[in-house]
Amino acid sequence: MTTSGRHFLQIPGPSNVPDSVLHAISMPTIDHRGPDFKELFTHCLTGMAEVFGTSNQVVIYPATGTGGWEAALVNTLSPGDEILCYETGHFSSLWKAMAEKWGLRPTMIAGDWRTGADPEKIREALAADTDHSFKAVCVVHNETSTGVTSRIPEIRAAIDEAAHPALLMVDTISSLGSVDYRHDEWKVDVTVSGSQKGLMLPPGLSFNAISDKALAAHETSTLPKSVWNWTEMLAAGRNGMTPYTPSTNILYGLKESLRLLNEEGLDAVFARHIRFGQATRAAVEAWGLEVLCTNENEHSPVLTAVIMPERHDADALRALILEKFNMSLGAGLSKLQGTVFRIGHLGDLSDLTLAGTLAGVQMGLQLAGVPIRTGGVDAALEILKGT
Amino acid sequence: MTTSGRHFLQIPGPSNVPDSVLHAISMPTIDHRGPDFKELFTHCLTGMAEVFGTSNQVVIYPATGTGGWEAALVNTLSPGDEILCYETGHFSSLWKAMAEKWGLRPTMIAGDWRTGADPEKIREALAADTDHSFKAVCVVHNETSTGVTSRIPEIRAAIDEAAHPALLMVDTISSLGSVDYRHDEWKVDVTVSGSQKGLMLPPGLSFNAISDKALAAHETSTLPKSVWNWTEMLAAGRNGMTPYTPSTNILYGLKESLRLLNEEGLDAVFARHIRFGQATRAAVEAWGLEVLCTNENEHSPVLTAVIMPERHDADALRALILEKFNMSLGAGLSKLQGTVFRIGHLGDLSDLTLAGTLAGVQMGLQLAGVPIRTGGVDAALEILKGT
Amino acid sequence: MTTSGRHFLQIPGPSNVPDSVLHAISMPTIDHRGPDFKELFTHCLTGMAEVFGTSNQVVIYPATGTGGWEAALVNTLSPGDEILCYETGHFSSLWKAMAEKWGLRPTMIAGDWRTGADPEKIREALAADTDHSFKAVCVVHNETSTGVTSRIPEIRAAIDEAAHPALLMVDTISSLGSVDYRHDEWKVDVTVSGSQKGLMLPPGLSFNAISDKALAAHETSTLPKSVWNWTEMLAAGRNGMTPYTPSTNILYGLKESLRLLNEEGLDAVFARHIRFGQATRAAVEAWGLEVLCTNENEHSPVLTAVIMPERHDADALRALILEKFNMSLGAGLSKLQGTVFRIGHLGDLSDLTLAGTLAGVQMGLQLAGVPIRTGGVDAALEILKGT
Amino acid sequence: MTTSGRHFLQIPGPSNVPDSVLHAISMPTIDHRGPDFKELFTHCLTGMAEVFGTSNQVVIYPATGTGGWEAALVNTLSPGDEILCYETGHFSSLWKAMAEKWGLRPTMIAGDWRTGADPEKIREALAADTDHSFKAVCVVHNETSTGVTSRIPEIRAAIDEAAHPALLMVDTISSLGSVDYRHDEWKVDVTVSGSQKGLMLPPGLSFNAISDKALAAHETSTLPKSVWNWTEMLAAGRNGMTPYTPSTNILYGLKESLRLLNEEGLDAVFARHIRFGQATRAAVEAWGLEVLCTNENEHSPVLTAVIMPERHDADALRALILEKFNMSLGAGLSKLQGTVFRIGHLGDLSDLTLAGTLAGVQMGLQLAGVPIRTGGVDAALEILKGT
Repeated sequence: MTTSGRHFLQIPGPSNVPDSVLHAISMPTIDHRGPDFKELFTHCLTGMAEVFGTSNQVVIYPATGTGGWEAALVNTLSPGDEILCYETGHFSSLWKAMAEKWGLRPTMIAGDWRTGADPEKIREALAADTDHSFKAVCVVHNETSTGVTSRIPEIRAAIDEAAHPALLMVDTISSLGSVDYRHDEWKVDVTVSGSQKGLMLPPGLSFNAISDKALAAHETSTLPKSVWNWTEMLAAGRNGMTPYTPSTNILYGLKESLRLLNEEGLDAVFARHIRFGQATRAAVEAWGLEVLCTNENEHSPVLTAVIMPERHDADALRALILEKFNMSLGAGLSKLQGTVFRIGHLGDLSDLTLAGTLAGVQMGLQLAGVPIRTGGVDAALEILKGT
Repeated sequence: MTTSGRHFLQIPGPSNVPDSVLHAISMPTIDHRGPDFKELFTHCLTGMAEVFGTSNQVVIYPATGTGGWEAALVNTLSPGDEILCYETGHFSSLWKAMAEKWGLRPTMIAGDWRTGADPEKIREALAADTDHSFKAVCVVHNETSTGVTSRIPEIRAAIDEAAHPALLMVDTISSLGSVDYRHDEWKVDVTVSGSQKGLMLPPGLSFNAISDKALAAHETSTLPKSVWNWTEMLAAGRNGMTPYTPSTNILYGLKESLRLLNEEGLDAVFARHIRFGQATRAAVEAWGLEVLCTNENEHSPVLTAVIMPERHDADALRALILEKFNMSLGAGLSKLQGTVFRIGHLGDLSDLTLAGTLAGVQMGLQLAGVPIRTGGVDAALEILKGT
Repeated sequence: MTTSGRHFLQIPGPSNVPDSVLHAISMPTIDHRGPDFKELFTHCLTGMAEVFGTSNQVVIYPATGTGGWEAALVNTLSPGDEILCYETGHFSSLWKAMAEKWGLRPTMIAGDWRTGADPEKIREALAADTDHSFKAVCVVHNETSTGVTSRIPEIRAAIDEAAHPALLMVDTISSLGSVDYRHDEWKVDVTVSGSQKGLMLPPGLSFNAISDKALAAHETSTLPKSVWNWTEMLAAGRNGMTPYTPSTNILYGLKESLRLLNEEGLDAVFARHIRFGQATRAAVEAWGLEVLCTNENEHSPVLTAVIMPERHDADALRALILEKFNMSLGAGLSKLQGTVFRIGHLGDLSDLTLAGTLAGVQMGLQLAGVPIRTGGVDAALEILKGT
Repeated sequence: MTTSGRHFLQIPGPSNVPDSVLHAISMPTIDHRGPDFKELFTHCLTGMAEVFGTSNQVVIYPATGTGGWEAALVNTLSPGDEILCYETGHFSSLWKAMAEKWGLRPTMIAGDWRTGADPEKIREALAADTDHSFKAVCVVHNETSTGVTSRIPEIRAAIDEAAHPALLMVDTISSLGSVDYRHDEWKVDVTVSGSQKGLMLPPGLSFNAISDKALAAHETSTLPKSVWNWTEMLAAGRNGMTPYTPSTNILYGLKESLRLLNEEGLDAVFARHIRFGQATRAAVEAWGLEVLCTNENEHSPVLTAVIMPERHDADALRALILEKFNMSLGAGLSKLQGTVFRIGHLGDLSDLTLAGTLAGVQMGLQLAGVPIRTGGVDAALEILKGT
């Protein structure tokens, strides 16, 4: 009805970018071989290591998340290698398909797209793999298509219990900077991430955090690699350089978003996202709708996927809300298309913007004729206002 | 609790500035004696005439609203002149005080700060002024301190009925671009406005729209004038120039905001503001609180002033809401301090941001221990979602 | 021929605005009654006091330079007061005309528009004024129309020698932040300035620095004042407030430009401008053209006015340079129109941009058929490269 | 000595980014699955096809130039494929090294790093390849390390004369948008480019323009590919989509830079760059220094590489110029390190900024004690001012 006011970008990423970050990326581009760039890039590498919770290697690619995941595979594995994947949803399926394109042999533990990767099933699969065919266990931390967050520490424990030497590779594209994550403490070998979610940046950067064990695997990996080659990225990075042209302006933004994350404090950021998830689920439940995630201890702090009542189309709802309230929501992906919509509640987001978001969803549901109870927004406000 | 996300600037102006306007004002400053400036300034003068609803003269000062009001006085009046003012609230009182500083003799019709200027009382005062001592009738269109919008066409009719020759001077600082206004049709002589409300700009520009009658008064006016001198402003303006340095970068923004107003359409803009006022009052009423404005046909589409229940301090509420929800609300001014808070709902504002605003007010009231009924936000959403 | 690349804004102000200042002014507008504004405004007042070289009062108006000068007059003088002015050029003449509009009685010491205010003539005029009719001595520090900088300390000494109680009022609109200036040390009573020159901001702010003596004069001054009233400005300023809406976004820029001035260091800034003046005059002399300023100790570090050879039109030259090289130069003003053009070399300016500026002037002169010797740019480079 | 004023980014890319492009990239990120993105992306694909001079396929990657080159290889070739490369300088050597990492077998025609790819040598090599082992001929259009532009139409003719079916793959990373280029007319099969040179954008996008013949080769190519896969990119692109997250904000900038290129007109842009090259070489010759490129018909319009006199270090010169004049110049790469410096004269660049650039080089050479004749800047100005 009107486009006055800011667009509500409530998809589960790209997330809303703070003004100061937008300003940062619009500073004039500098020489990426000069001293100012070295200082900038070194700062970004150091800051990202903190966000990953690692004292080990970090590389930053001028790419988006898919590139970061490809980098993880080609740097550690060799043609024909078997890997163990877990089907948490659309993105875990994409990674499996990517592995196949690279001549890897993924085994996918089936999932129901409503729960996270089950540590017990991973333990069983690894225990059964007595000759250690699996070179890597690949898991999505926060499955953006379902709003389910897998429990990485328990998966780590499962691998350890099976005493299996496979690398643990984790996609944190939609969780890093929003959900507690500890690359070193959880002994993850490769963590993949991207700029456009919890880091509150436009898309354009992707990241690998790399354990020493992963680096050792890299030495013997024979998949072809050039752009993604860790050896060259790390060698250059130690001098604050990149082996080829970096995405300079997005790096300006990264410096600013690291400052913002630090200013709020990562623990406060994580707590805020958890609270946003609780408020959103309170609204969904008050409306009488169903959240896709069924495990109470796996609800995503980043997004909430909501199941549409039968005979109601989620995409029609989203289109109505976009048209009438100038708000973007996330679509149901692949097999969830039309039956699920996703509310992003991550990044640079306040209580009041979340309230406005839920108000838009509530009005949209009503206008679309979806049978809901009112009171969703009020239920969320009860959570948001605290005690 | 957190400053993540954008600040909610819900005071009754300055209003939220659209991103594209902020971008416009940050383009490099140009030579204000060169051809590009002439084109810009001519465009702004023409566009502002449309917004004022006039085919007569417009001047643009590098000043804020107070300067625009001073300009209206010094350009038309002479020392000792009597003027008729109407006490609608804080701002009408300021203008009376200003007139006194300039050696004018204002007569103020007393008001209750809850209603607009009463056309009938103005008619009576003018009818009694048989020797036409009053040189001007000064009214605030939208009294920003109270959320009451005076009925200018009826005031015009009252003056005409009294057959009084006084100039009609109207402050539209907080209404222009948000509330229907017609300088020519309503035979206003001087309309004063500013950039930071309905025009969705930062403060820094003020405006006079000037009737031929006002221009004739200007010819004989003897109050000293230099910076505000219409003669010089108008002469320069006809050539796309200014007699002295203009506020170039805010003019960039004005060009963009005129484009935005035109894109949405002024009628749609006015309807949106009316709807926002209705939704806000619905919330206030649902909470069981009282709106300051008591005349049903004078509710401001720009802001709503809310009376705090006794023994609750409006400023403490505002401080709590600022601290906890990162939202600014307007204070009660002068005699309303502490007993009233004001919710701005003007400018670049969407349904969802208004919903977030009201959510913040509702939570703030609850946290402040103000006895309210819940349901305010839901009541507003009923209005916002339409039929 | 092409508009690729940045416009060269080489008028003597507005000067080029640094990117970081442009970014600053495009941050969202905030509540000017809230705590963040108080911090900002207090910071700006304190920083401006440093730039003025004063530990006394500073006020910041949402206005441009002309407003600042009007403020100086109306706050200190009364109808019929005599003031002593010095005709250094166009701007000193404007101030005289303004004084007359306010009912003051200015006496103008005639000047040749090629030299600064002569301290000896001022001393004589004051010595002759045995009954102390002159209430103020009004001088332009850097006469922007001629490129001549008057020697304020010597003028101060002349006033002292004459033991005359007149206030000393100085326009530093085009010098402050570019040329050494010391409000307190030189016992200036009112210093007027603006944002768009040495402060590297867009126009939109003007300033008064006020001595205690000026403040005492303010107490008894009877010219009408409202917008410019120091009493209200100072009272509010002490609380980080303004009595009416300030130009918030330009104040953001002021904070950043104060940071930049501090980073480079005011002494380095002044030295840079002196060097730029020397390089420019070296070019003019090498071309065989004449600089307007004839006093070796009064050359402006801010701009250089160049006399066109007879039968050549300065405005035609400027138009050609604008069209072909996308550079704005300053016009000759009033009686200098067509016979003089002005090269601004102030503000956010580097050696290389000045070199490009002079290259554009040299090519323009050649294309306009003005008989010059080449070598102007090279002569300037000799100065710029240093020893 | 001072960092006042804008940095002079006169490396051969990234080039200076216009303010309007910087503003564009700082608009809020949008949903890359929504209708606005589709419109944006379709616009960018269409516009880039025009810039490439193709009516065939274009893909846009969220990557930098190296990624674009990798994409060209992996989409068209299979393990063990032979390709013919031409050693024009550092970048052609990088591409050879990349091919080897992917298991391809490049044959490199040796070059002297001072001339372009010799069409005759290519013809000979292809004529000798009677069994058509070479699957592709890989050439760099504008060798950024040497300032030499190879003659693609003559190379095309050489291939045709040899009646060889190899694909023609051309790197236009530093030429596209600055130098005349015609993908279709010259029957190029894959043209690779990037955002940060002639397109006047920050780095972050890379491009492939793809002939039908290249697309046919893609069908049978067996190098592993996922991120770079044309099939998926093209399928999505036809719907204004991308198979994975794009670099949204840089695409905003691309839309604006396409507008700017269109406004100036590509032919005018090309002519401007040629003129900049001529002016720069005139300066170099006047200084008595030697341009690296030795073929009169292969001088780059984008950059000029200058040979340092013996016993003078180019990197020391660059450091001095950066320190003293706040200008970045390009280093000599690999075997040219220290003996060559490179002046970029591309992108958003005006005559006056180029004049300032050459002034900085001239002063730097003098300060570094390099024996030069003066007059370089003047010689350049003779070219720039035209007739």
